Amino acid sequence: MSEGKIRRPRAETPKGFRDYFGAEVSERKAMLDTIVAVYHRYGFDPLETSAVETVEALGKFLPDVDRPNEGVFAWKDEDDSWMALRYDLTAPLARVAAQYRNELPAPYRRYAMGPVWRNEKPGPGRFRQFYQCDADTVGAPSVAADAEICAMLSDVFESLGLGGDYVVKVNNRKVLNGVMEVVGVLDPADRARFAGERGIVLRAIDKIDRLGEVGVRALLGEGRRDESGDFTRGAGLSAEQAEVVMGFVSARRATGAGTVARLRDLVGSSAIGAEGVDELETIAALLDAQGYGADRIVIDPGVVRGLGYYTGPVFEAELTFEILDEKGRKRQFGSVAGGGRYDDLVKRFTGQAVPATGISIGVDRLLAALQAKGRAGGDAAGPVVVTVMDRDRMADYMAMTGELRRAGIRAEVYLGNPKNFGNQLKYADKRQSPVAVIQGGDEAAKGTVVLKDLILGARIAESATLEEWKDRPAQVEVARTDLVAAVKRMLGR
Amino acid sequence: MSEGKIRRPRAETPKGFRDYFGAEVSERKAMLDTIVAVYHRYGFDPLETSAVETVEALGKFLPDVDRPNEGVFAWKDEDDSWMALRYDLTAPLARVAAQYRNELPAPYRRYAMGPVWRNEKPGPGRFRQFYQCDADTVGAPSVAADAEICAMLSDVFESLGLGGDYVVKVNNRKVLNGVMEVVGVLDPADRARFAGERGIVLRAIDKIDRLGEVGVRALLGEGRRDESGDFTRGAGLSAEQAEVVMGFVSARRATGAGTVARLRDLVGSSAIGAEGVDELETIAALLDAQGYGADRIVIDPGVVRGLGYYTGPVFEAELTFEILDEKGRKRQFGSVAGGGRYDDLVKRFTGQAVPATGISIGVDRLLAALQAKGRAGGDAAGPVVVTVMDRDRMADYMAMTGELRRAGIRAEVYLGNPKNFGNQLKYADKRQSPVAVIQGGDEAAKGTVVLKDLILGARIAESATLEEWKDRPAQVEVARTDLVAAVKRMLGR
Repeated sequence: MSEGKIRRPRAETPKGFRDYFGAEVSERKAMLDTIVAVYHRYGFDPLETSAVETVEALGKFLPDVDRPNEGVFAWKDEDDSWMALRYDLTAPLARVAAQYRNELPAPYRRYAMGPVWRNEKPGPGRFRQFYQCDADTVGAPSVAADAEICAMLSDVFESLGLGGDYVVKVNNRKVLNGVMEVVGVLDPADRARFAGERGIVLRAIDKIDRLGEVGVRALLGEGRRDESGDFTRGAGLSAEQAEVVMGFVSARRATGAGTVARLRDLVGSSAIGAEGVDELETIAALLDAQGYGADRIVIDPGVVRGLGYYTGPVFEAELTFEILDEKGRKRQFGSVAGGGRYDDLVKRFTGQAVPATGISIGVDRLLAALQAKGRAGGDAAGPVVVTVMDRDRMADYMAMTGELRRAGIRAEVYLGNPKNFGNQLKYADKRQSPVAVIQGGDEAAKGTVVLKDLILGARIAESATLEEWKDRPAQVEVARTDLVAAVKRMLGR
Repeated sequence: MSEGKIRRPRAETPKGFRDYFGAEVSERKAMLDTIVAVYHRYGFDPLETSAVETVEALGKFLPDVDRPNEGVFAWKDEDDSWMALRYDLTAPLARVAAQYRNELPAPYRRYAMGPVWRNEKPGPGRFRQFYQCDADTVGAPSVAADAEICAMLSDVFESLGLGGDYVVKVNNRKVLNGVMEVVGVLDPADRARFAGERGIVLRAIDKIDRLGEVGVRALLGEGRRDESGDFTRGAGLSAEQAEVVMGFVSARRATGAGTVARLRDLVGSSAIGAEGVDELETIAALLDAQGYGADRIVIDPGVVRGLGYYTGPVFEAELTFEILDEKGRKRQFGSVAGGGRYDDLVKRFTGQAVPATGISIGVDRLLAALQAKGRAGGDAAGPVVVTVMDRDRMADYMAMTGELRRAGIRAEVYLGNPKNFGNQLKYADKRQSPVAVIQGGDEAAKGTVVLKDLILGARIAESATLEEWKDRPAQVEVARTDLVAAVKRMLGR
């Protein structure tokens, strides 16, 4: 077969995945380093599990046994058992907590970060691989552990320079369950009863930002028809029952004490409800004693979190500054992290309930927020480019580059075909290089080099006044022996 | 179905994978941070592709079209196309270099790090997911790019504190091809001829450390029967031909100039061989001019690298210090990084040859070396543990913990059941805590706290002399207001 007949493979990122270049990588790394420093200071230990788990251990996404790839990327191993890419960092933690329960410290504080994978239809801004950064405490029954998670999350935002621009909201599923009991859709003696209705109530409340009060009330009652004409069945509550639920959602008062009093009122004689209110009160007191005021952490009954597995306190962190949405309207940046207490995940494996609580930060959204605020870190500065005027003197150019690097200056020698000098300056431009170093035969004979200030050069080209040009020339000739010092001056170091 | 009948999932790491805890994670991170700092200073930009590629783009491991999972983990996407986990970081780079060829700077220097996956039989110390850390320059035809890779690799080892304990070896496939031409198993006019024989020669030389000279000579000739009785077919060279090849392998002389002269002799009139010797000479001169002496980078014809796709210079970095092997015998630590020039990988996609050269560091092996030398970084110190004597005063204990954290001290409050104080000290021990903070009712009333020096305590318990005990008590009582300062003193800060 002649070579021309071979179909070449397509060079394409697989559908729903993406590539990250340069600053996209280093800014995310800088952010994660800052977050991890806080986690570390709080005594949390890193854990890195592999990307692959057995489908048996992941569990959750298993509609049928034959082909378990609903929601996850799965395949059969040689021994015919199914394996899959992890879809979050909590399921592997539950597996580890069960597997190493005799070796791990108890309680076990751990953090984890890395990519997770979802086998979903990709959409704009929705990828099938994305980062999570989690911290969890396993084996601590007391709500002091929940309070610590909230405090740590607040410290994370302060460390990232977002002080004043965020709020951590705390609620408690037990309070909501108390309200459900009052309303009559939770029977403490038979918790399976009304489980469907409670699920509908939970998801309805979770959508209040999108659907508004009217939409949520419709879902609490008979149901709701959306703009497309699709009908979603409601929980079937009466108007009076729905009123109690809506009262819970809007129970937040000016002070934490006020909110707690209102909630205590709402849960009436429900034992589980009272327990939830007590827990919120304890969390508030512990945080208060440490100086986390209502400007940083608040009790907000409007937060319920969509996931079914939470059993107690739930948390959500929102960024409160405004950005413009796709249509140019102002809106709050919104949620960037969420979590809560889940006491049943380890039980799947061991049969014994293990109390656990934790938080998951949406890394991509938080990074987008930092970029919007101009607070993304990462050293994305381009390198000084040493150009090649005379290809026989490559050793000299590499020596210059080496000197700059040893002085801690990011530097490169041009490694393309040096014939066209214009291409070298175009390259320096593409690299966002601050300084180009030039030494032709004349300069070499004189023992000098020419430094071109490319940042100033670009600025002059855009909008120069004669004065600026005079004060600070965009190009200087210096002694070869003065190379490093002169580049440093030009870089303002 | 009653709950007792449900089979519980097994809590097991999937076969061939592993979990990394605490210091294992932070030491690797510290090492990678050091490596990346060098790459960054050299002007290399980070690139992070997804773990998943289309099987079409990965190419290589495709014995049959129907089930392409030989060597890789692969599965079918919804649209029936095959996807797979990447098996190295070079294949995704080739895909990116082809896909973004109009946007990327040329030459393109990039580094990448992360896990790769191999669908192989797991064995002792051989895992199906492991880390690589690569740096490559794409689009630079000159061997100055190869010299730069060698210099950078040398700087990486210096930065890691391995100065004097490593050597970067450089060779050139073209020289080997010249030798093959002289021997008569390479026909410049018909390169497909003898390709099988050349492959056998290449793999034989690559195994010299394991097989010794006698074993390699057998493989160059008729073949070799190993201890198990298995026969490996040889390249069929005569004793005279084998002599020339062995002369190449042992061509290293005391100086670079001596080695180059010997190689020039060996390749005789072969044009490709002479080109290879010229390139080695240029690389040596460029590195010499930058002060990389033979103690850091040497020309060593014994290095050939097993991979088929190298087309010019090849590199291998070895650690030269001795460790004890499983049988207690001394041996050199050996290879921790390798690479070379490959000019055909991008061509698969575009049809145009793109010159590229690079290096891949075996992250796990290098980390093991640093650990063996006691040079692994990472802040693995355990936290100060604030114990809980009185569960009603949790707010006080959390406040102490908060003060310590704000002073930059890693600290935890005990979050387990506080009833048994012995368990709290056992927990502190498991956490490798340096200091325990204790405040019972008496201390609270007096306004003091007790600090227990757990490191000193452990040392005293092991081998104390009375004098040590007197000089530095393992337990002190200090004013509550002096908590942070006293802990700092105890930590030696």
